[in-house]
Amino acid sequence: MTDRWALAIDIGGTKVEGALVDDRGAVLGATRCRAGTGGERSAAELDTSVVQVVDGALDRAAAAGVAEDSIVGVGVGVAGPIDERAGTVSPINLPAWHEHPLRAVIAARKAERLPGVPLEFHRDGVAIALAAHWVGAAHGVANMIGMVISTGIGGGIILDGRVVTGNAGHIGQIEVSGATGELSLGSRTTLESVASGPHTVAWARGQGWPGTTGEELAAAFAAGDDVAVRAVERLAALVGQGVCSAAALLDIEVVAIGGGFSRVAPDLIDRIGAHVARHPLDYVSRVRVIEAGLEDEAPLAGAAAFVHLADRLPAAR
Amino acid sequence: MTDRWALAIDIGGTKVEGALVDDRGAVLGATRCRAGTGGERSAAELDTSVVQVVDGALDRAAAAGVAEDSIVGVGVGVAGPIDERAGTVSPINLPAWHEHPLRAVIAARKAERLPGVPLEFHRDGVAIALAAHWVGAAHGVANMIGMVISTGIGGGIILDGRVVTGNAGHIGQIEVSGATGELSLGSRTTLESVASGPHTVAWARGQGWPGTTGEELAAAFAAGDDVAVRAVERLAALVGQGVCSAAALLDIEVVAIGGGFSRVAPDLIDRIGAHVARHPLDYVSRVRVIEAGLEDEAPLAGAAAFVHLADRLPAAR
Repeated sequence: MTDRWALAIDIGGTKVEGALVDDRGAVLGATRCRAGTGGERSAAELDTSVVQVVDGALDRAAAAGVAEDSIVGVGVGVAGPIDERAGTVSPINLPAWHEHPLRAVIAARKAERLPGVPLEFHRDGVAIALAAHWVGAAHGVANMIGMVISTGIGGGIILDGRVVTGNAGHIGQIEVSGATGELSLGSRTTLESVASGPHTVAWARGQGWPGTTGEELAAAFAAGDDVAVRAVERLAALVGQGVCSAAALLDIEVVAIGGGFSRVAPDLIDRIGAHVARHPLDYVSRVRVIEAGLEDEAPLAGAAAFVHLADRLPAAR
Repeated sequence: MTDRWALAIDIGGTKVEGALVDDRGAVLGATRCRAGTGGERSAAELDTSVVQVVDGALDRAAAAGVAEDSIVGVGVGVAGPIDERAGTVSPINLPAWHEHPLRAVIAARKAERLPGVPLEFHRDGVAIALAAHWVGAAHGVANMIGMVISTGIGGGIILDGRVVTGNAGHIGQIEVSGATGELSLGSRTTLESVASGPHTVAWARGQGWPGTTGEELAAAFAAGDDVAVRAVERLAALVGQGVCSAAALLDIEVVAIGGGFSRVAPDLIDRIGAHVARHPLDYVSRVRVIEAGLEDEAPLAGAAAFVHLADRLPAAR
């Protein structure tokens, strides 16, 4: 067993999750615990969930025989937007937290439970990108985007081997041409508003498909349903277009894609890659589009990477 | 007079320009010289223009009394795309140069004229961003985009105080929604294909405006011509949209805009800023949109910055 654990905390729109993660990215399953979040909760209730998970993971660690002095830091990945300098968050899906001083809430609990170790506090998309770079399918790639297709579309950016902190990586907020979705954050034409899981399902329903969930759409695709096949191809084209815009702007080598809705079709990643490969600029068309490869452990592994790879992080911004 | 000069070379679609630039960004006018490029020239003719400018600037420097050993490096900014590792360029507007080993051409001449000093070789948009950060209106801004609106739309990116090299900053190649232009690099819906100088003029002509140049469009705007006013507002909205996409993806503080067509209306920069200020995400709406402030000296100042600020450059990529 390692003597260098990170307490990793992932805070999202539906849940908080925490666990100890070792310095090779392995999650210690016996320490894993979670609590609910959600848009209906008050700021204090959300804080309580976070503190419960901090305590729960540390209590389970003690029960599992982990020495307290082998926990070398706390890494937090949280839904954005974030203001790293102020230590505040304003997550889109948690309206009760607006410019909420979450870093101070966690720091206060950390001071009681783990005095003296550092606290790293960044956005969840940054964590996911760093996880793919650290222990995922994009291992060691110096210039990359890690991307999630789920209820929303987000991600993080690594350039020249260093993660870009702050809000960088919100790829779902770039505009796309040729499609219109439901209103989201003031626009019907951002990648997220036309191609997220819910918006893709809504598009399929608008074409006469009778289902209501991403799982049903995946099943319909597997069964060869015409609308589902067109929905997947539309999704691939739109994500491909967004990837091309980002790749033209950033000059990257790899886009690593994860998230639940990225599994709506077994070949979705290949379809996205086929669109990117047709781009007329060589440095865009040669970008490799791959599965991130970490499944549900990416957010925790990435939060732990904030501790274990602290030298890859620039100053907060 | 400084004892630390850079030989700065800017290589674009219509001309090569060169001059000595001191370590505070001042261009030594007596050393400035230029030669033509252009899409009709052969690869060898283009090389000859570059070598002529290298020789011309150095000969003028000697005539002006600059000691050869006070020239501490050669900085080159060149139209992209670029492959920095290979030292090759494939400029969109100079088709005779495709994967052309330009770095070796310049290195060979440098070895004869300035043996022993370093050669820094990057894209022109990177130079322009670095110039704005070094001695322009975005002085000292750690997270920014430097952007040019001209025959094309391009730029460069600085994150965490370090310039992003390679092809990063090609903001004209991101897709925009709600407009269609003329075909450019395989798309009618990139920012460049809907909002460059020529495409904006073409849009105005399509609305019945009789002129043919950007200068005429600027004059028509100044005279209150209805189509010209709408053309400027359309340009501001589209550039504003592109800036929002880039700012959402990168989390920057400033966009510094220059280039000849950015002066088509005295208030164009303010109009772009007004669009950005309406974005629903706080970290996007607070981005400051400013004039780059270096006019025509930005490309040479930026090429010199590759030498004088070499510590801000990551490894070639």
